[in-house]
Amino acid sequence: MIDHEKLQAESVRNKRTIKTYNEAGWEQPKDFVAVEAPLTMYVNGEEFATLLCTPSYIEDMAYGFLLSEGIIRKASDVTSLNISEEKGLVYAELTEMRPLDRLGVSKRVIGSCCGKSRQFYFENDRRTAKTVTTDVTITPQQIMARMRDMQENSQDFHDTGGLHNVGIATPEELLLTRSDIGRHNGLDKVFGYCVRNKVKLRDKVIVFSGRLSSEVLLKVSKIGVGVVLSKSAPTTLALDLAEDLGITAVGFIRKNRFNVYTHPERIVED
Amino acid sequence: MIDHEKLQAESVRNKRTIKTYNEAGWEQPKDFVAVEAPLTMYVNGEEFATLLCTPSYIEDMAYGFLLSEGIIRKASDVTSLNISEEKGLVYAELTEMRPLDRLGVSKRVIGSCCGKSRQFYFENDRRTAKTVTTDVTITPQQIMARMRDMQENSQDFHDTGGLHNVGIATPEELLLTRSDIGRHNGLDKVFGYCVRNKVKLRDKVIVFSGRLSSEVLLKVSKIGVGVVLSKSAPTTLALDLAEDLGITAVGFIRKNRFNVYTHPERIVED
Repeated sequence: MIDHEKLQAESVRNKRTIKTYNEAGWEQPKDFVAVEAPLTMYVNGEEFATLLCTPSYIEDMAYGFLLSEGIIRKASDVTSLNISEEKGLVYAELTEMRPLDRLGVSKRVIGSCCGKSRQFYFENDRRTAKTVTTDVTITPQQIMARMRDMQENSQDFHDTGGLHNVGIATPEELLLTRSDIGRHNGLDKVFGYCVRNKVKLRDKVIVFSGRLSSEVLLKVSKIGVGVVLSKSAPTTLALDLAEDLGITAVGFIRKNRFNVYTHPERIVED
Repeated sequence: MIDHEKLQAESVRNKRTIKTYNEAGWEQPKDFVAVEAPLTMYVNGEEFATLLCTPSYIEDMAYGFLLSEGIIRKASDVTSLNISEEKGLVYAELTEMRPLDRLGVSKRVIGSCCGKSRQFYFENDRRTAKTVTTDVTITPQQIMARMRDMQENSQDFHDTGGLHNVGIATPEELLLTRSDIGRHNGLDKVFGYCVRNKVKLRDKVIVFSGRLSSEVLLKVSKIGVGVVLSKSAPTTLALDLAEDLGITAVGFIRKNRFNVYTHPERIVED
């Protein structure tokens, strides 16, 4: 095991007094609620983006976000990172003073091949999303076991019902889990951790509690992992991208069953 | 009943051939997948935003989005709306040629009262989010019944497992349901419908399958509805905003139980 989600209790979940109604009438218990907070990132002194997130593992999340936005390519591109947790501010200084290409982040690129997923990439996705060519393989039993491992590890979800969980694993072992109210942020926390700690990604799989949307698939391709295992449903655009980017997308993973949507060649018999 | 989600089958869900694994081994059935597609909005000829959405009720969604972004204040502010469904493009022409205040949309406003939710409003939220002062009341039995109505109405969710449902209801009756892969888009579809059809909102409640995040609460306040009923969990920031904006937030609504987080004064005995 590398490192599992430590509770960082206050930053992940808060106790609140609520009113609950059930057949016996009203009660006023204290209950855990998932923490959401705004985090504004400055890059070389310029305001870059505000994330609405669960403020745990902020440093890893900041690195992961900068990596997946294509602002940095490796951890050492950041010369300093200062965090004001109380104010929800992150200041990153980079080695290169590249101007922030805001247009590249927001403008849609409309390609010529209508109906194909590539048409929809934003300009910065076009730079950073890459076809994944890993030759990792995984068996059906391993798929269900790694999802089970992650679910058993997720006290915060059980407590709050409001957090997404993201894990990174080898086929044999769950290595790291992170949680966040936002699916992207959880992926960024894992991405940042792996790049900062030089964790090899080609032989890993991502384990994910949330739905597989196009944005999740793009992020998986940027991380460079070839297999994404989800407890939930995919969307059509996510599957088009997975097909296109060479990613094995597995969904609806339950105790005894799952669906494979794309690139089944990485799934081998037990 | 005003109008329920019509299936608009092709734009909401698509059949795909998948591989499923279960104890009996592998099968290759066809299964429904929720449709996700990019929709780029131009306002007075200028590119404004790209939504990743389920492309049903595009006109209502466009109106709802422009309303909640503060770009228009009423339906008649739009002089024409042209949609290219195939290309995923919407062209809106407005009566007023107000420049799109992009900074207002993306820049975070950092107020002085640290820790209070108001600190985080984006500039356009500050303009459009408003304290809700409706005097609608609802009983525990009505809360559970309206959620049940919506769940029973949601064939697409049952088929795909990947769509969020949004309904608008009086305490006595579910009036309208919409679904989308994105929670905001579902709310925008309902918002746009109501404003275009002059549906009074002060005596309504919103019924929602997804989690209550800060962005959802802000949108509810912009719609001007005082009660939001959710099947899922809230976040801390959403509850701070609900408290602040005068919204009754109800979560974890099941067959026989629910939690009330804020402004319980709108919930009255059966």
